[in-house]
Amino acid sequence: MQPTYQTLRWEGDATGTLYMIDQTLLPEHFAEIETATVEEVWAAIRRLSVRGAPAIGVTAAWGIVLGTQEARHSDCDTFNNRLNHVAEYLAGSRPTAVNLFWAIDRMQRVASETQNDSSEAIHQRLFEEAQAIQAEDEQMCRDIGRHGASVLESGMGVLTHCNAGGLATAGDGTALSVMFAAAAGGKDIHVYADETRPLLQGARLTAWELQQRGINVTVICDNMAAQVMKEGRIQAVVTGADRIAANGDAANKIGTYGVAILAQAHEIPFYVAAPSSTFDLSLATGDEIPIEQRDADEVTQGFGRRTVPMGVNVYNPAFDVTPSSLIRAIVTERGLIESPDTDSVARHLD
Amino acid sequence: MQPTYQTLRWEGDATGTLYMIDQTLLPEHFAEIETATVEEVWAAIRRLSVRGAPAIGVTAAWGIVLGTQEARHSDCDTFNNRLNHVAEYLAGSRPTAVNLFWAIDRMQRVASETQNDSSEAIHQRLFEEAQAIQAEDEQMCRDIGRHGASVLESGMGVLTHCNAGGLATAGDGTALSVMFAAAAGGKDIHVYADETRPLLQGARLTAWELQQRGINVTVICDNMAAQVMKEGRIQAVVTGADRIAANGDAANKIGTYGVAILAQAHEIPFYVAAPSSTFDLSLATGDEIPIEQRDADEVTQGFGRRTVPMGVNVYNPAFDVTPSSLIRAIVTERGLIESPDTDSVARHLD
Repeated sequence: MQPTYQTLRWEGDATGTLYMIDQTLLPEHFAEIETATVEEVWAAIRRLSVRGAPAIGVTAAWGIVLGTQEARHSDCDTFNNRLNHVAEYLAGSRPTAVNLFWAIDRMQRVASETQNDSSEAIHQRLFEEAQAIQAEDEQMCRDIGRHGASVLESGMGVLTHCNAGGLATAGDGTALSVMFAAAAGGKDIHVYADETRPLLQGARLTAWELQQRGINVTVICDNMAAQVMKEGRIQAVVTGADRIAANGDAANKIGTYGVAILAQAHEIPFYVAAPSSTFDLSLATGDEIPIEQRDADEVTQGFGRRTVPMGVNVYNPAFDVTPSSLIRAIVTERGLIESPDTDSVARHLD
Repeated sequence: MQPTYQTLRWEGDATGTLYMIDQTLLPEHFAEIETATVEEVWAAIRRLSVRGAPAIGVTAAWGIVLGTQEARHSDCDTFNNRLNHVAEYLAGSRPTAVNLFWAIDRMQRVASETQNDSSEAIHQRLFEEAQAIQAEDEQMCRDIGRHGASVLESGMGVLTHCNAGGLATAGDGTALSVMFAAAAGGKDIHVYADETRPLLQGARLTAWELQQRGINVTVICDNMAAQVMKEGRIQAVVTGADRIAANGDAANKIGTYGVAILAQAHEIPFYVAAPSSTFDLSLATGDEIPIEQRDADEVTQGFGRRTVPMGVNVYNPAFDVTPSSLIRAIVTERGLIESPDTDSVARHLD
């Protein structure tokens, strides 16, 4: 079934408008946010109306286009000043998002390469580059899906954690793209979605996407994964990744590492699906990946009612690192890295 | 530090009143429920104002005393009819709670053994038996704490799952009694409490109890346990159990089995603390323990706001079974069963 939703949608030419699904309202309400200014884009990223590393990158690119629309009739110095201001401003919306900086850098580079043109011409190039970034993201998702679908067979139960779906990208997602492609290829799979505390991206977003696509999905609490595996319901685990070290160690949403250990204990293959841009070869191993700590109130009052006594400590790491020894294969847009290690990762990215 | 709360408290003689902490209001509000009728006791068990296998048993015993108070001036036939009615009625409050039936049976046996006495004399014996059941439960908790404290040392981080605390018993609890006894013995421990989805007994109840006792406690989401172990913060895991098979396989709150696998992967000893009455020797292994399935809305709207799309399946097993091979020792009121198996369990219970 084709998607009935589009995470990011640009309407019009270079002076157009960006529409995005307000993910904070899912699954209860489906609504798009219309963003006509860079301030609206900044706020949407900040409050997590749009989230997921690839989607944030594409959003930031469109934010640059929106933020420089008015300056396209000014002189080039004014335009470039505005561009730099907008770039710096957007970079502060989610300071730890690598794809945000990557997209902003790419847009600034395009502008600097066309600096002898008129402001309007530069702005037109920025518009085209944002289109290209979005199109590349969509293609990346399709390619990951195509390669990854080969590991899934009809009748399989597939566990996933958090949301590495279309809502996290401009296209079909990464881990979920593998499932969408398998289903599109006629494979009958049943997906189990960890609800993914504290912010419940699995329950709220992954379940919603699979339902939209007509794929059989069952939500479980994170602590039920071991039991579901023991009952023989899971034949493969597929998750996304936020950052992958040179040796294949993969950082992803908190809980992923535990799921990988449980998968190994039940002899279930564990796959990571992520674009090759997720690799950070400056990091030899996952030990060098910093773990972001987030606010306690995500845990203590994530649902409107306080669930932890006042004054009690909460520990809230946002990510963990799954060692490559627990990963059967990493799926990128280029293909599969089986039994990932420093050598096989280097060969794949070469 | 001595407890500042008492889960179950009887005031007066045989015609007295039962007070219990309303656990559904914790941690936001501390309030006692006054129950003067068996109907009020039934309702309190049903809505989980009192929960935990041992506490439910003690509550049911007091429910029998309350339910037969008015009949103590009737003839013996009328009294016994009333007793049987009350017993059957209470047994329906939580049909899967083994301790409930155990306590009701014990009260009925006491009544049948004193059947040549006056109704008032039988009622007095029921009152004394309920006192004995509560006192035995309190002693059982103290003994488990004393034996279990030997496995904890100062400086240890201790992970627990769900609530096997004083709130689940008439005394100090089972798993938490081990921690209370260690702390009372001058050992400086730091407890990590899994929040324990879906009903958050860890976040709401375990954290509250440890805070009340002045023990350092940090709440984590269930899916953070692996990361916390990897960071070297945990040196022992201690949980309760709801039912233990003859070979030492232990059923406990959903998520316990996963924690046991994670503990093994990090070479952390995993202990189960439970009274010897938890053993069900009619079951050769844990495979014979039925897993209760609970309502989907515990998962989909546990916090007031719906977190799973309408129409999406939810799987909600309430328990899982940890194989004895993952358990370093089972702590009962009689001592420790190290490396539990059919032989060592039989010797311990002999």
